Amino acid sequence: MRELELLSYIERVAASQPRDFPRVVVPPGDDCAAVRTPSGDLLLAKVDQVVGGRHFTPPVTWDRDEPGPDGLTRDAYLGLIARKSVARALSDIGAMAGRPMFGLAAACLPAGFPSDAAEALAEALHRWGSAWSCPIVGGDIASAGRADPGPLVIGLTVIGLAHASRGPVLRSEARPGDEVYVTGSLGGSLEASGLGRHLTFEPRVPEGAALADALGARLHAMMDISDGLGLDAGRMGRASGLVVELDGVRVPVTPGSDLRGALRDGEDYELLFAVEAGAAPPELACGVTKIGVCRVPDGSTPGARVRHADGTTTEVSRLGWEHT
Amino acid sequence: MRELELLSYIERVAASQPRDFPRVVVPPGDDCAAVRTPSGDLLLAKVDQVVGGRHFTPPVTWDRDEPGPDGLTRDAYLGLIARKSVARALSDIGAMAGRPMFGLAAACLPAGFPSDAAEALAEALHRWGSAWSCPIVGGDIASAGRADPGPLVIGLTVIGLAHASRGPVLRSEARPGDEVYVTGSLGGSLEASGLGRHLTFEPRVPEGAALADALGARLHAMMDISDGLGLDAGRMGRASGLVVELDGVRVPVTPGSDLRGALRDGEDYELLFAVEAGAAPPELACGVTKIGVCRVPDGSTPGARVRHADGTTTEVSRLGWEHT
Repeated sequence: MRELELLSYIERVAASQPRDFPRVVVPPGDDCAAVRTPSGDLLLAKVDQVVGGRHFTPPVTWDRDEPGPDGLTRDAYLGLIARKSVARALSDIGAMAGRPMFGLAAACLPAGFPSDAAEALAEALHRWGSAWSCPIVGGDIASAGRADPGPLVIGLTVIGLAHASRGPVLRSEARPGDEVYVTGSLGGSLEASGLGRHLTFEPRVPEGAALADALGARLHAMMDISDGLGLDAGRMGRASGLVVELDGVRVPVTPGSDLRGALRDGEDYELLFAVEAGAAPPELACGVTKIGVCRVPDGSTPGARVRHADGTTTEVSRLGWEHT
Repeated sequence: MRELELLSYIERVAASQPRDFPRVVVPPGDDCAAVRTPSGDLLLAKVDQVVGGRHFTPPVTWDRDEPGPDGLTRDAYLGLIARKSVARALSDIGAMAGRPMFGLAAACLPAGFPSDAAEALAEALHRWGSAWSCPIVGGDIASAGRADPGPLVIGLTVIGLAHASRGPVLRSEARPGDEVYVTGSLGGSLEASGLGRHLTFEPRVPEGAALADALGARLHAMMDISDGLGLDAGRMGRASGLVVELDGVRVPVTPGSDLRGALRDGEDYELLFAVEAGAAPPELACGVTKIGVCRVPDGSTPGARVRHADGTTTEVSRLGWEHT
């Protein structure tokens, strides 16, 4: 089953629910949902999962805390898995320009998972939550049965607060003529050993807030890049009813990768954002690069395309790596 | 690994976090955590999981929507599994006397899980969320890899609001002399076919709120019974530093079960609560029964015991069924 098809089905189901819930300001389909509290705070809400064999390579055994092929001890590797679980959900808070309030973690352990490994995992989830100002206030631990031992599954829910003055920055509000930017560099996150950048990236929470602080209402649209620039720029384009036209030579590529990797590798967790033409974003330590412009579709389908040096263009909306 | 030991470890880890998070009013360890928003709303937060082979019996195959051994179609059974996922988390909101605001659902599907089954599951999660005033505003779907196909795992996070006047009702604030009550009847939830009451119980959200409405500050402590009256009354006793002394002949037993079942079967999801002596709880359609009293330990360990008709007592704090 393809994740994209199912997510699209779920968004249709969610949209067809009776509009009995006026507190839900942003329904499912963006990086986070947004819900208004009785006193007027705007909460952001996101859940994401990390699954062994899909989002990280499980070791041959969880039984002993000894160095694996990457030279990492088991508990150090569990620390990185916990880190990624928290960071993925926080990345979506950053992508709305919000700040985290608290998190909840649910883990389903493979049958026979040793208790010292479970403790190392729980300790690391708390440690990373605290480090990123997102205390883990609730958790659940279950084990798979021996008949169906299963992978390690970690589900992380993060509740945040929308940016106080700018409000939540959606992916769907880019406008024709907007200039499109990206933080950091893209591509190669999953390369080589099990220790790629997908396990060590820094969620762009301060950066998302800094962009909203500096740009205010001129920051029209934002999202994080989790599935590759091609697919995610296509999502911003479709959600906004526009074509995001990327300049192939401007896309910042991680050393060792290339434009193709930047477009389709995924797991970069950088911010993609659209600002009013001429409104210069602030400088950020991670780097900010102008990579394109938003255009009216003019007969073509909303999405994303790359313009090459020779003037030709390639549709890239379906290029990215699909998590399943 | 025993769930109790691990949960106790996690609570110690959580308690050892630096007290940098003054917004966390109720830390992990009660039915829900409670977190104050900037404008002063008090949020309740809970995550819970339902795992195939642990919390429900998986069918021989998910491949076809045809009647199983219980005469239920696959999609009807998935509907009950979705229902239980939402109901378990809501039960904890009810146990604090709160009301739900919204939920988020994460599902990890076994490898090869058919897309029409995933759609039936997603549709049922939304349907039950809406039915219980808890719209599902976010979700994530992942699949286990074929190398490690795994059970169906559903993680449900619910965010609620504490009772406006009474505030969150903790399990730890029972006082000596309090009278102890329970809603409904206990025991036999897991009996017989796969269709026990554990799949069809009604979360006691309106009942929890009605108790707080009527009793106010005289409602001292409350929790839901998920692991059996013995274990859960023991938890209330230990959290409050008291002995909860239950009157064996007064415990309301579900027809077909017995006192032993009521004490240890678990998955009843009824409310256990302690009120100031003489403060009569309101009548509820589900029934409310006085079953005991809170006593100062007087040299014995805090926990729970049953007083039998012949005057003897049995320690029951360790009796319940332990989810793993």
